[in-house]
Amino acid sequence: MTTTLIETHKVFEGEQRKYRHFSETLDCDMVFSLFLPKQTDNKPTSLIWWLSGLTCTDDNFSQKGAFQKYASQHQLAVVMPDTSPRGTDVADDESWDLGQGAGFYLNATHEPWAKNYRMYDYLTEELPQLVYTLIPNFSGKESIMGHSMGGHGALVIGLKNPERYCSISAFAPILNPSQVPWGQKAFTAYLGSDEKDWTAWDTTSLIAQSPTAPPIHISQGNDDNFYDVQLNEEAFLKAAEGKKVSYKKLDGYDHSYFTIASFIEEHLQFHTDYLG
Amino acid sequence: MTTTLIETHKVFEGEQRKYRHFSETLDCDMVFSLFLPKQTDNKPTSLIWWLSGLTCTDDNFSQKGAFQKYASQHQLAVVMPDTSPRGTDVADDESWDLGQGAGFYLNATHEPWAKNYRMYDYLTEELPQLVYTLIPNFSGKESIMGHSMGGHGALVIGLKNPERYCSISAFAPILNPSQVPWGQKAFTAYLGSDEKDWTAWDTTSLIAQSPTAPPIHISQGNDDNFYDVQLNEEAFLKAAEGKKVSYKKLDGYDHSYFTIASFIEEHLQFHTDYLG
Repeated sequence: MTTTLIETHKVFEGEQRKYRHFSETLDCDMVFSLFLPKQTDNKPTSLIWWLSGLTCTDDNFSQKGAFQKYASQHQLAVVMPDTSPRGTDVADDESWDLGQGAGFYLNATHEPWAKNYRMYDYLTEELPQLVYTLIPNFSGKESIMGHSMGGHGALVIGLKNPERYCSISAFAPILNPSQVPWGQKAFTAYLGSDEKDWTAWDTTSLIAQSPTAPPIHISQGNDDNFYDVQLNEEAFLKAAEGKKVSYKKLDGYDHSYFTIASFIEEHLQFHTDYLG
Repeated sequence: MTTTLIETHKVFEGEQRKYRHFSETLDCDMVFSLFLPKQTDNKPTSLIWWLSGLTCTDDNFSQKGAFQKYASQHQLAVVMPDTSPRGTDVADDESWDLGQGAGFYLNATHEPWAKNYRMYDYLTEELPQLVYTLIPNFSGKESIMGHSMGGHGALVIGLKNPERYCSISAFAPILNPSQVPWGQKAFTAYLGSDEKDWTAWDTTSLIAQSPTAPPIHISQGNDDNFYDVQLNEEAFLKAAEGKKVSYKKLDGYDHSYFTIASFIEEHLQFHTDYLG
């Protein structure tokens, strides 16, 4: 299949690129962004997956994440996929927390969503094969991170594939979607109303059954409007006992990209420690 | 007059705020953004003015400029005004390079623009008096900078008020608007077709007559699509001979905020050197 480079900007000596391709998995055209650090010496480049939150596209992190300086320093490529399938032929909903922009990084089993909403397969099978070919001198090592719905996505994908990702991190992730309104609404639509089918996509359920979870680092602002209702960590931390998890509250920080920009250096240092 | 705080986010231990107020000068409601660094010890806070380019608002730099880390380090407040008067009662044009979003930081003399388009007076008289009161422990020292049309604005305002600004910097500024399409279109509309009236708003004319120009630092990407037609520096550098001007070409960088983010640390260090 054809992958078309549609935009590129030099930034911190590297390149912030945007590509378009047709996804067989999602059955629609998709765009994604990719940061490539400058090639220095022969140091291999490792790969970070960034998954954004509800309503976002591949642009939010590239423009507001302020990560390129540190990705350059650590010789990291960063791929930013879109948050759902897109297009006039793709099912959608009039609310902002379901449908396009709200794919929840799972494989939907119920119509009208099942036809296109297979973000999990897209991110773990189709897109990696494409992205690997775009990284010069790729080390073969990967980590995954995200924000809010994307923090949920990073944790679910990381926990389902512990041999693949060296580390997982998240800002303000939805840690227990089965028990909160955002997750219940999305899971009911995409997976149906049988809650047994939800556990395979719930970080709190997954970590309890994961003997080999990669190291996890989570940052959560304590001035985040969504914290109480959508992002509470209590059940997760109980389920994660004995696992390598650091969960850090950030005093006065909220749900915005300003928080991400403030702590992205720390997160990329965390991943670098495990990517080697 | 009432100034209303409408948004605030903690970022790099400081605060990224947005305010709304009624401007007497512009005869319309205006918003502006303001970054305040954390108060540390009793070190006074100096002020940087950031002026954005065509089509921008106060949001572009706050979200994409990646400046907050360095403003925090140097104890700098940064104010980001909008780029023109706004509103349904404010004159506008269907093109993106005239009217709302394209104020060119001057005082218009020709209708329908003269009623509201007085950005120069707004930025040098009304808004400073308001902003000074919002900065705890203000040092009284100011510098000014901007991008593209905002680089033109920073240079014009700085050169007209050399006693007021400690330093001036710009990314990809319109250095000689009287001689390039963007400036000729705007000046003809706002100032009329007599080109003698344009020189008061043209950096290249101003610097030739400015014995006390503040130190100036300019960065220009050499992969900037607008460079050849709108941003050429030749006449400016000739007029600026003998002045304290550093003009730096950036290999491979373009007109985007990715360039600004890559070199904002250097620009804020430049200003800090003169703000003391």
